[in-house]
Amino acid sequence: MNVSSLNAAQVDFVHSIRVGWGDCDPAQIAYTGRLPAFALEAIDAWWEHHLGGDGWFQMELDRKTGTPFVHMSLDFRSPVTPRHRLKCHVWPTRLGNSSIEFRVDGRQNDVLCFEGRFVCVFVNPDGFQPKEPPDDMRRVVESQLKPA
Amino acid sequence: MNVSSLNAAQVDFVHSIRVGWGDCDPAQIAYTGRLPAFALEAIDAWWEHHLGGDGWFQMELDRKTGTPFVHMSLDFRSPVTPRHRLKCHVWPTRLGNSSIEFRVDGRQNDVLCFEGRFVCVFVNPDGFQPKEPPDDMRRVVESQLKPA
Amino acid sequence: MNVSSLNAAQVDFVHSIRVGWGDCDPAQIAYTGRLPAFALEAIDAWWEHHLGGDGWFQMELDRKTGTPFVHMSLDFRSPVTPRHRLKCHVWPTRLGNSSIEFRVDGRQNDVLCFEGRFVCVFVNPDGFQPKEPPDDMRRVVESQLKPA
Amino acid sequence: MNVSSLNAAQVDFVHSIRVGWGDCDPAQIAYTGRLPAFALEAIDAWWEHHLGGDGWFQMELDRKTGTPFVHMSLDFRSPVTPRHRLKCHVWPTRLGNSSIEFRVDGRQNDVLCFEGRFVCVFVNPDGFQPKEPPDDMRRVVESQLKPA
Repeated sequence: MNVSSLNAAQVDFVHSIRVGWGDCDPAQIAYTGRLPAFALEAIDAWWEHHLGGDGWFQMELDRKTGTPFVHMSLDFRSPVTPRHRLKCHVWPTRLGNSSIEFRVDGRQNDVLCFEGRFVCVFVNPDGFQPKEPPDDMRRVVESQLKPA
Repeated sequence: MNVSSLNAAQVDFVHSIRVGWGDCDPAQIAYTGRLPAFALEAIDAWWEHHLGGDGWFQMELDRKTGTPFVHMSLDFRSPVTPRHRLKCHVWPTRLGNSSIEFRVDGRQNDVLCFEGRFVCVFVNPDGFQPKEPPDDMRRVVESQLKPA
Repeated sequence: MNVSSLNAAQVDFVHSIRVGWGDCDPAQIAYTGRLPAFALEAIDAWWEHHLGGDGWFQMELDRKTGTPFVHMSLDFRSPVTPRHRLKCHVWPTRLGNSSIEFRVDGRQNDVLCFEGRFVCVFVNPDGFQPKEPPDDMRRVVESQLKPA
Repeated sequence: MNVSSLNAAQVDFVHSIRVGWGDCDPAQIAYTGRLPAFALEAIDAWWEHHLGGDGWFQMELDRKTGTPFVHMSLDFRSPVTPRHRLKCHVWPTRLGNSSIEFRVDGRQNDVLCFEGRFVCVFVNPDGFQPKEPPDDMRRVVESQLKPA
């Protein structure tokens, strides 16, 4: 399969989040501390969608594979508010031997609100030792890889 | 319109929440501190659904009507986990001159997880003075009233 | 030891919480969904103080005793803001065979902000079976019991 | 005043956070989504300490100066748990015309848990227009500047 057919097969995964009153601070926008949590929820939902319903919870407890974070960076471009759903576009941008990098772009009403980069390590839940991802996870990630 | 036709016209409002890894504590269930927040989000979503897209944020900023809480009580019946969506059934059970009471039942996979009772007061955002609800809000609530 | 000497020996446990910008909503007060979480943190801190540094985390993982909640109710008396520390007064009001009830009063600048009642069950972490509290926990609770 | 005397005069600001059960996820460590929020709380507390008790809440409402975030990046070095207080070392590393950069290092039991870099912009609360910081804020920041 060549690159163009791969790209053609890919449809962006978008996780929609209802931003509410309780997410907002006195500046009447979503509190900065909520935005990384929104992006993390979107990555969790990305796994859930691509692993047949299994997100981080089932990956850790049922599949014995954790993915703790070693890095995150976010650029905040425009405020997030309850006036529109927050559409989080998620895709993996790099797969290493025991690590994975995700990009998460948050958009509201077609405006880019934040761009984030997140790096996780595959580990055994007992002891946090790094390991290679299981084959099915590797295949899912490889099928969705796109440049950052 | 008599009571039975009213009831016939009513369809339960159900707000679905994705419970994730980040909502759970080391006991591998949703943290107790998250459950009232889930119920509040469901009430916010109830207003949004019945006011044409306006939840607490727009009620306060655009419609100049706040609804701060004066009471909440919850009974926790069964643990909430990420294995199913949390279906929050919301309905108003009482409308006073300047107050409103909501019932929120949280269910997963047809199992009752919690039952909650919440009392709010209608206020002016400037100064928190109690007031009567605006007519359109009153009509919406009256059309959805059901016993607790 | 008679009741009056018991009371004389008791000093209210007060857990102080820094309320910040991130706890507040667009009404410029702490979001209602944060208040139960503040009260829970205060109960966790109550255990930590009385069990020589062991809060819920160590109780569950090291002492094999969980205390999940079966009920909470709160009355909100006055808004909580970042202008003062939130002083949470915590005490146990009832000890059953396998249950415990706590009272938590939140005060700022000598004003009562909320009163809460919380009921927990002692359980084995594996399987959530109710059990009697360990002797040292029972003794700690009995020494601090006061009417609601 | 030369650099060495400046450095001698400076004492690191350290904000202590009680990490509890409710901050932890099923991996029995503080949830990744909580860590940026801890760092933000520490920056809020840094302002509060250096502005005579005024944190972000009072800066926005009383002093009419907001400081929304345009960037954050964090490296996670070691898990955060409830077994020790989280000591957040905070200092400003750069002051621009209308921007400020903070470093936040989180340590537990003398182990570095995370390092974070945060960039904020000084704005008018009405309209989010960038502006120069007020003189007293500028003086406080300049007196505490240290390399990253």
